[in-house]
Amino acid sequence: MSLSDTHITLAHGNGGRFMRELIDEIFARHLANPELDVRADAVTLPLNYDTEREDLLFTTDGFTVQPLEFPGGDIGSLAVHGTCNDLAVAGAMPRYLSLNAFIEEGLEVAVLERIVQSLAQAARDLGVRVAAGDTKVLRRGEGGGLYLATTGVGTKPKSVQLGMHCIQAGDTVLVSGSIGDHGIAVMLAREQFGLSGDLQSDAASVLPLTQAAVQVDGLRFMRDPTRGGLAAVTHEIIQATGLGVRLMQGSIPVRDPVTSVCEQLGYDPYYLASEGRVVAVVAPERAADVLAAWRSLAEGEDAAEVGTIEATASHGVVLETELGGERILEELEDDPLPRIC
Amino acid sequence: MSLSDTHITLAHGNGGRFMRELIDEIFARHLANPELDVRADAVTLPLNYDTEREDLLFTTDGFTVQPLEFPGGDIGSLAVHGTCNDLAVAGAMPRYLSLNAFIEEGLEVAVLERIVQSLAQAARDLGVRVAAGDTKVLRRGEGGGLYLATTGVGTKPKSVQLGMHCIQAGDTVLVSGSIGDHGIAVMLAREQFGLSGDLQSDAASVLPLTQAAVQVDGLRFMRDPTRGGLAAVTHEIIQATGLGVRLMQGSIPVRDPVTSVCEQLGYDPYYLASEGRVVAVVAPERAADVLAAWRSLAEGEDAAEVGTIEATASHGVVLETELGGERILEELEDDPLPRIC
Repeated sequence: MSLSDTHITLAHGNGGRFMRELIDEIFARHLANPELDVRADAVTLPLNYDTEREDLLFTTDGFTVQPLEFPGGDIGSLAVHGTCNDLAVAGAMPRYLSLNAFIEEGLEVAVLERIVQSLAQAARDLGVRVAAGDTKVLRRGEGGGLYLATTGVGTKPKSVQLGMHCIQAGDTVLVSGSIGDHGIAVMLAREQFGLSGDLQSDAASVLPLTQAAVQVDGLRFMRDPTRGGLAAVTHEIIQATGLGVRLMQGSIPVRDPVTSVCEQLGYDPYYLASEGRVVAVVAPERAADVLAAWRSLAEGEDAAEVGTIEATASHGVVLETELGGERILEELEDDPLPRIC
Repeated sequence: MSLSDTHITLAHGNGGRFMRELIDEIFARHLANPELDVRADAVTLPLNYDTEREDLLFTTDGFTVQPLEFPGGDIGSLAVHGTCNDLAVAGAMPRYLSLNAFIEEGLEVAVLERIVQSLAQAARDLGVRVAAGDTKVLRRGEGGGLYLATTGVGTKPKSVQLGMHCIQAGDTVLVSGSIGDHGIAVMLAREQFGLSGDLQSDAASVLPLTQAAVQVDGLRFMRDPTRGGLAAVTHEIIQATGLGVRLMQGSIPVRDPVTSVCEQLGYDPYYLASEGRVVAVVAPERAADVLAAWRSLAEGEDAAEVGTIEATASHGVVLETELGGERILEELEDDPLPRIC
């Protein structure tokens, strides 16, 4: 038995020779970088940041997407993008990641290797290094194939001050592109409900978008609308600020395949996950600057102004329909699409 | 449905109200600290370390122990001790943790809360803060109850230089206490093989032991013997250094219940996991100093000198029996106890 094996076995998790081979031949080989030392208990991060002018930022995320590979991405690239995006929307540059893999007995080694390669490529593209990792093997029937967790360390200029506490009535709400592509692409990849299609997930790094936006004074807050989508982000703004949010349905970019699936299944695109979009709140007089910066990037060509922050709180997000009516987007309760990220 | 619910449902993972309640009422309430902001994408770590004199250390570990609660600990305290111990044996002070929880649908909320409370208490006792977290809910049958992952950030004086590359022929191998208690305690808690008993796991922070040891010049290397036990640690030394390791069977502290279970099941205690012990390699003339420092601590009262580093490499670890014979401890291949940590 070795990695000439085609499938993961419990022995790949036991601290002995097979685990060492799994780590060396799959993880260390593809993720190789000067900091990663798979024999060390802990590694030194040579961050060399200016502690007077920069802050150290920290975040973590878990990934359980099913299927593990989907049009436009896989759980590996998603585990890099998801965590680095959380640093990016906080205004930081991602620097280092840790990686935990919970691998189910029986997973094909070839699938695991493709996913680790994709993860390594996503990290290289972002200039981020996986400096620490751990693998556990779960018994067949206890794992769902593969779960990943990544923790990210980044640095941010102290001069960049973003947060919900910066949001003011009258501010403008922007999105960097169409919403819900990730949720529907993953759903279609499952071939549930007899539906299929070739919609690509939007899963990607948002770092070019966030780094462009932080150049603009008047940027208040950014977030990537993952679980719970645009509705969840705007609900959190209401809860944190006591202000209201009004969204203009006609301005929110939604791709035709997303609209079509939503109509067939009764889903609401505002609750669907994106994995490569940014929602930003900007002072109204500077919104056009962020929009122009985003539209000049490939990642932001469909960016749009989609709503405003209102002084009056309501119990939900107000969605103004194209005919001038109003709907309230309630906070999400049931779960249309589990294991979406 | 809410946390007046007694069991976790998929809606506790969907980004909406139930997830917010789960995070607020279970995680944020028990883990509360100034850095943790469950509404933020990423948080600032106010490390305030001296970048001239200190290094930033980074490590991660995943936890899948079954049962989730066992005599002497649970998966929550283990998730703190395991990762902080990896920083500690590298000579660092643990400072911050991130926490990922993969929770299976159907887990009792009361069990989850006990585990999070235990995790929070372990962190407080160590002076470590959980600054970032994420939860995912797995469908029933895809999760094994609860998996945790923790990533740790610590600081270490640059003057402390430890590592396998420091090990020299003639050095002394020490252990800080009896080996295999964790492995056998967890096994007995499963009530497999018709065996039961009240052995306590050794799971604990090793920070007092490691901080005492780093005071001694001549300390070369430390590691906590988790998966694969003392045998795995000594094998890694052989592989990394090209030197040999000779262990003296009669000197290795093994508790009676561990010996007894090992005899009944044909296990070898040298391969069993400990979760609160340290294996150290020390220059021979300073070994007595580390031993004395350890024995003065409650955690190290059974510390012992157990072997030596030899100039001649062998393909395995040499175990000298009490009758003067020799056995070779091969590298672990099969897995006697899966989901032990």
